[in-house]
Amino acid sequence: MSYGYFGPRGTFTQAALASYLESNGVAAELERSVPFSTVPAVLDAVMSGEVDFGVVPIENSVEGGVSATLDALNAREDLFIRAEVLVPITFVLAARPGTPLESIDAVGSHSHAWAQVRGWMSTNTPAAQYVPTLSTAAAAEALASDDDVPYQAAVCARMAAETFGLEVLAEGIGDNASAVTRFVVVSGPGKLPASTGADKTTLMLFQHDDHAGGLLALLEQFAARGINMTRLESRPTGVAMGSYCFSIDFEGHLEDARVAETLKSLHRVAAKVRFFGSYPRADRRPATVVPTATDEAFVESQTWFEMLRVDS
Amino acid sequence: MSYGYFGPRGTFTQAALASYLESNGVAAELERSVPFSTVPAVLDAVMSGEVDFGVVPIENSVEGGVSATLDALNAREDLFIRAEVLVPITFVLAARPGTPLESIDAVGSHSHAWAQVRGWMSTNTPAAQYVPTLSTAAAAEALASDDDVPYQAAVCARMAAETFGLEVLAEGIGDNASAVTRFVVVSGPGKLPASTGADKTTLMLFQHDDHAGGLLALLEQFAARGINMTRLESRPTGVAMGSYCFSIDFEGHLEDARVAETLKSLHRVAAKVRFFGSYPRADRRPATVVPTATDEAFVESQTWFEMLRVDS
Amino acid sequence: MSYGYFGPRGTFTQAALASYLESNGVAAELERSVPFSTVPAVLDAVMSGEVDFGVVPIENSVEGGVSATLDALNAREDLFIRAEVLVPITFVLAARPGTPLESIDAVGSHSHAWAQVRGWMSTNTPAAQYVPTLSTAAAAEALASDDDVPYQAAVCARMAAETFGLEVLAEGIGDNASAVTRFVVVSGPGKLPASTGADKTTLMLFQHDDHAGGLLALLEQFAARGINMTRLESRPTGVAMGSYCFSIDFEGHLEDARVAETLKSLHRVAAKVRFFGSYPRADRRPATVVPTATDEAFVESQTWFEMLRVDS
Amino acid sequence: MSYGYFGPRGTFTQAALASYLESNGVAAELERSVPFSTVPAVLDAVMSGEVDFGVVPIENSVEGGVSATLDALNAREDLFIRAEVLVPITFVLAARPGTPLESIDAVGSHSHAWAQVRGWMSTNTPAAQYVPTLSTAAAAEALASDDDVPYQAAVCARMAAETFGLEVLAEGIGDNASAVTRFVVVSGPGKLPASTGADKTTLMLFQHDDHAGGLLALLEQFAARGINMTRLESRPTGVAMGSYCFSIDFEGHLEDARVAETLKSLHRVAAKVRFFGSYPRADRRPATVVPTATDEAFVESQTWFEMLRVDS
Repeated sequence: MSYGYFGPRGTFTQAALASYLESNGVAAELERSVPFSTVPAVLDAVMSGEVDFGVVPIENSVEGGVSATLDALNAREDLFIRAEVLVPITFVLAARPGTPLESIDAVGSHSHAWAQVRGWMSTNTPAAQYVPTLSTAAAAEALASDDDVPYQAAVCARMAAETFGLEVLAEGIGDNASAVTRFVVVSGPGKLPASTGADKTTLMLFQHDDHAGGLLALLEQFAARGINMTRLESRPTGVAMGSYCFSIDFEGHLEDARVAETLKSLHRVAAKVRFFGSYPRADRRPATVVPTATDEAFVESQTWFEMLRVDS
Repeated sequence: MSYGYFGPRGTFTQAALASYLESNGVAAELERSVPFSTVPAVLDAVMSGEVDFGVVPIENSVEGGVSATLDALNAREDLFIRAEVLVPITFVLAARPGTPLESIDAVGSHSHAWAQVRGWMSTNTPAAQYVPTLSTAAAAEALASDDDVPYQAAVCARMAAETFGLEVLAEGIGDNASAVTRFVVVSGPGKLPASTGADKTTLMLFQHDDHAGGLLALLEQFAARGINMTRLESRPTGVAMGSYCFSIDFEGHLEDARVAETLKSLHRVAAKVRFFGSYPRADRRPATVVPTATDEAFVESQTWFEMLRVDS
Repeated sequence: MSYGYFGPRGTFTQAALASYLESNGVAAELERSVPFSTVPAVLDAVMSGEVDFGVVPIENSVEGGVSATLDALNAREDLFIRAEVLVPITFVLAARPGTPLESIDAVGSHSHAWAQVRGWMSTNTPAAQYVPTLSTAAAAEALASDDDVPYQAAVCARMAAETFGLEVLAEGIGDNASAVTRFVVVSGPGKLPASTGADKTTLMLFQHDDHAGGLLALLEQFAARGINMTRLESRPTGVAMGSYCFSIDFEGHLEDARVAETLKSLHRVAAKVRFFGSYPRADRRPATVVPTATDEAFVESQTWFEMLRVDS
Repeated sequence: MSYGYFGPRGTFTQAALASYLESNGVAAELERSVPFSTVPAVLDAVMSGEVDFGVVPIENSVEGGVSATLDALNAREDLFIRAEVLVPITFVLAARPGTPLESIDAVGSHSHAWAQVRGWMSTNTPAAQYVPTLSTAAAAEALASDDDVPYQAAVCARMAAETFGLEVLAEGIGDNASAVTRFVVVSGPGKLPASTGADKTTLMLFQHDDHAGGLLALLEQFAARGINMTRLESRPTGVAMGSYCFSIDFEGHLEDARVAETLKSLHRVAAKVRFFGSYPRADRRPATVVPTATDEAFVESQTWFEMLRVDS
């Protein structure tokens, strides 16, 4: 199996891939994995078969959903999420060896990272300008290799600093010490993981029209079967201002009876349902299922119904 | 086939049976049909096999649900509604031949009938006392045969007056000219009529607890699938003041996909569901089904779901 | 103050009035209270001013809502419920002194009472015919005073047997030992009892149309404010088969903020709302109010809202 | 009055401010308005009183909600939206005069803009690398003034190209010709615009807990009063993965009766409600109000309720 990720080397995404490979007992695959410079490039490589699996960020506990990933998944056919990985996000301030903190008047990083270190930066390098880069690791890489970059320090993962030979001036500089980013492992069709009792399913839902009642009717399908949502993001359809679709993660697996009925019901009620896969939760926490929505309750109600058909 | 009905001869129930037999091309069976003096007696005769079918009143457009029938059905196992019959209710005032209207100081009838002629009676025989009887026809029969009855006139169907040789003093005396009573034809297990597209289903629903939200959760199962209720009656469970179950008629047949899903869902959510049968509507009006709840929509969503299972 | 009740003397309704008067410290008023032979007659007497208050049965724990009372209230303007009274229902079998049980071949009683003693009667007097009467006490009164009645025993309250000098052949003959009937004390406008924290309110709701969703929309108004319903009865509007309005009791008082908002909301959503009064619960059980629906929560949200208006 | 905006000169935000000033008859104020390099800087200037009003982007028809703005508003107290401005988004590709299209191997722009021209760029400059900048105008400004920038062309507004003396190589290069961005005009407390019948209100809602039913309960408050939502964005609270609050725009004004009741109800049900103002819609389209939720219906129901209090 081959793996691609949102790179370059040293990104938190690479750390997520490393964690995923290790927990699957194939840590050595990290060496052969391929970095891509953008999220869409990772997904394109999966679609073309250049790699079997791609790893991309999808949600950050501080910054929210990663729009680029949600939109790129939505714009492509036949991609499915096979696993999720949670990575604690710890930022360092890195510079070329010997750079004094006082000399820094500009800092490069990805905008999501910058938003998460703003407090520390305004206290410790109040005069520093922000320079956006494509990723946190790209900021580090360019700083290490290119004399011309318009900044003297990068906000990135410790791994990126080490990878590119930068010196760590400060660590743990994130404003929220418990920040976590959630990454997903994506592949083409054909490999739906088995139900584990602790799964998530990801959908994109399109309403027939855009009024509040429309979304309500979709959310009621989940609530009616006691299904807990863990993420809800609206994304514009691009058609017009105020026209949105909804990216949703919820607890449960396609093969759970309550999920099967919900999916079929959504398919009838929504304008369109995109199914992006069912996969084990990273935290292994089993779904809480109300007594009226267990697989046993569904089997029992089916048995009762069959008896009505023959015996009444 | 043999038939029992809530009698004696001359009741509106006998008229309902006559209508039913005629529309089934077996009008001659009326001769051999058996009257019973109470609704429970009719149902007991069906259960014991004394008759194959029993006809009883279930709902009146002026007086509402017939509690005696609902409770008697509920108290017996293995009884199912196979058909419904609508009979326009037109009352006459009948007396022994030669009785002048002015001489009437008491009138016998069933309490439901009395409630429907109160207006006419207070205008035309303001001094007349009401004497309750077991049925409208029983009032007529007793008046014709028993010198001792404490009334001089009966409120009943024209058919009863004729059957027992009474004279009609006035007709069309009901306060509501369009009053209709709905009767049901009941049998034991084993004869579920086929779906016609214009069917009704009858249930008794028991809540797990008695708060408003409990009933709401049950009614939402119907609304979620666009199913129209045509009757809702609360009946006490007898356990305690305020403890109710709900007798419900709705549009659709057990074999309709939206009904099947609703029944199974109710079975999971309710404390108990009694199924009393699916049968053709008397008025042949097809059920209005929202586009998201047609059999085609259910089949299509099932096909889509099966594809997800193999192709993702 | 003067009082009327559904009589004659010896009915359970008279017992309810006695209980009400005693708990109000005016037990002596019972002497001067006036029996009427039907429920509508009681209500007419209140409307005409013949009596200040009228007592009628509204709900039985075994037989359900008393349709005659619900319909009679609905058909009259300007009547309001001021109190409720709960009376345990214990039936006796009464006959003229010296009558042996074996000699009884017919029994008189009100149909509701008969339904509640059917089990005992079929065991102990299996051959006895049922003869309907206007009330349980009327059966006893006629038996005591009229040689011509077509029955030898009456099912009634012990009080009726004593009142009319009958002998009690058996007592506690009800099939449900914990049967209770709820009575209401009705008056004309102008005397809304103060809120006690343990109140009920009675309404009649009319839908704009008769589909299931219509009732659902009305019930959601209660659920949205955490209001608990204690009785729901459908009653036909008389317009057509399947056209129903709904008689509802719920916990709370007109002056409770959550009730006020619910009533106003119902008035906007329903075709018509009839308000039949707020009055103390007979069992004094305080209403359970969710934290988001207390009077304090309403006051607090109003204060917050007023601040928005001036400070934003 | 003084105005700040998300700059530098040449941004779409400046165009929005220009449009706003012109429609208010004070176009000359544009000269004296102050650009700020980030959205938080604009809002800080409003809070400190450095400017009276600030203009920032809040929603794009292709890219969705502007997270930086939503989060910055949320992190500050006492800021309110006073107006909205819609600006059609048309991108040009701009370079130093004389630059041939073929020579471009890197392009600078804001990431939101880049996402909207990806199609055109991959067709016409397939080899060009993307270089992120703080804003579209910042890309143009740096290109015009700084020989060292690592790109030869900028994707920006025509206005930016003209402002900084760049040559337009291509125009209308957006993938979605009807793209629109919505900007809001923000001020401190004290200036709530009057209701116009065509208004929007903006809120941030915090749930008590994060299950699906929690959001549902909040959305039902809008649906119950027929209120149409025009934008719903989830934003992480930062507390933990999966902990979200919701930024919502809906039709109506604080002074509309249905909005007032909804706000008060949300205040009771939600953990917290932030009110960000009611303001006229840019498109002047009047709110569609269901008959049961008009101001007249609310007044009428209040009148009815007051009569109940005195007359029952």
